[in-house]
Amino acid sequence: MREVFQQELAEVQDRLAEIARLVAISIEKATRAFNKSDVTLAEEVIADDDKIDELTVQLDELAITILARQQPVARDLRIVVSALRISASLERMGDMSTHISQLARYRFPDKVIPKSLRPTFAEMGALDVKIANMLAELLTTEDMALAEAIRNEDDKVDALHLSVFDAVLGETWKGQAADTVDATLASRYHERFADHAVSIAKKVQYLGTGDWQQPAPADA
Amino acid sequence: MREVFQQELAEVQDRLAEIARLVAISIEKATRAFNKSDVTLAEEVIADDDKIDELTVQLDELAITILARQQPVARDLRIVVSALRISASLERMGDMSTHISQLARYRFPDKVIPKSLRPTFAEMGALDVKIANMLAELLTTEDMALAEAIRNEDDKVDALHLSVFDAVLGETWKGQAADTVDATLASRYHERFADHAVSIAKKVQYLGTGDWQQPAPADA
Repeated sequence: MREVFQQELAEVQDRLAEIARLVAISIEKATRAFNKSDVTLAEEVIADDDKIDELTVQLDELAITILARQQPVARDLRIVVSALRISASLERMGDMSTHISQLARYRFPDKVIPKSLRPTFAEMGALDVKIANMLAELLTTEDMALAEAIRNEDDKVDALHLSVFDAVLGETWKGQAADTVDATLASRYHERFADHAVSIAKKVQYLGTGDWQQPAPADA
Repeated sequence: MREVFQQELAEVQDRLAEIARLVAISIEKATRAFNKSDVTLAEEVIADDDKIDELTVQLDELAITILARQQPVARDLRIVVSALRISASLERMGDMSTHISQLARYRFPDKVIPKSLRPTFAEMGALDVKIANMLAELLTTEDMALAEAIRNEDDKVDALHLSVFDAVLGETWKGQAADTVDATLASRYHERFADHAVSIAKKVQYLGTGDWQQPAPADA
């Protein structure tokens, strides 16, 4: 019985890592579609998000089944409850990839972002991809150094997000209203993607401490 | 033991309703601060969001304690797991109120939104307030008619959200870049607030069906 339980916990963690890997693929394609104006790639991301949604629903059902049949306590209980929260964050990260792709598709064949901001968005996209890959690695290895690294990369995303606002609100902004709307939304999607990754990283760190006197970190 | 358990489940549901009432107060103040440019009110919302965050963390800890000590199964397990998800959505709704208030504070003493869009935002704000009040009522009474009503009101919010984009992308839009940014963000905050309420309403409806063969609805 105990051995089955350990296998089930391992299954939960494997599935989280699997979903995280799909999210990493999704954001890589989405940011590439966005920066290069590739509508075929954008369509792939949008279609493939169903798979991420499906896997998170299945993971949640597995977690609930474990709660019902195995009735875990202490650390094992925290792992299962954390899995529910992490799967919700991964699902939202998939949604952010989808929103980025929808913008790319909407403006195709034009690029979404005016020239002046393309380096900024290329960088934000690259950071999101890096963060997603580190997150998949973290969920596979539980290497806490990755959790800290994710939080550091998120600080860079936040700084770029602020710089987008400086640009669109500055005196040299030549964009039309559509450019302003797109830059605002796109920047927010990239920033929220990274925020969710940090939220997950914090939960993994919390599980690592084993300090159940402290409550689990709230969702970012 | 069973009686204690029933009391604890009731406690979870009472706390969800309490947080929902605070969220309803929060969005009422936030939309009023936003539409009337009231910085004092905006500051209250921002400060009071800490209370919502604190209560959701405490509720999550109570839910985890129940899982550990009472080891619920079947419907009771679904109630406790749903409570964790609902509390996360309520916490995000509080964040949306805060974001709306931050915009009001940032632009004070000017109003955030240009004249042409003020009726639209007044209506979106009023709908969010109505939805929040219905949600608090739903979590108190479990009257499923309220769940349907919330979903209908959300459709209206979605329509208004689209109309904001039509306005800022249309030919008669006279706003500066700052107005475009603010309208885009504010509209998204109002729309996400309502989305989260729908997400909660769906979960309450799911609990009402008692059909555990179907997986729980994903977070919207």
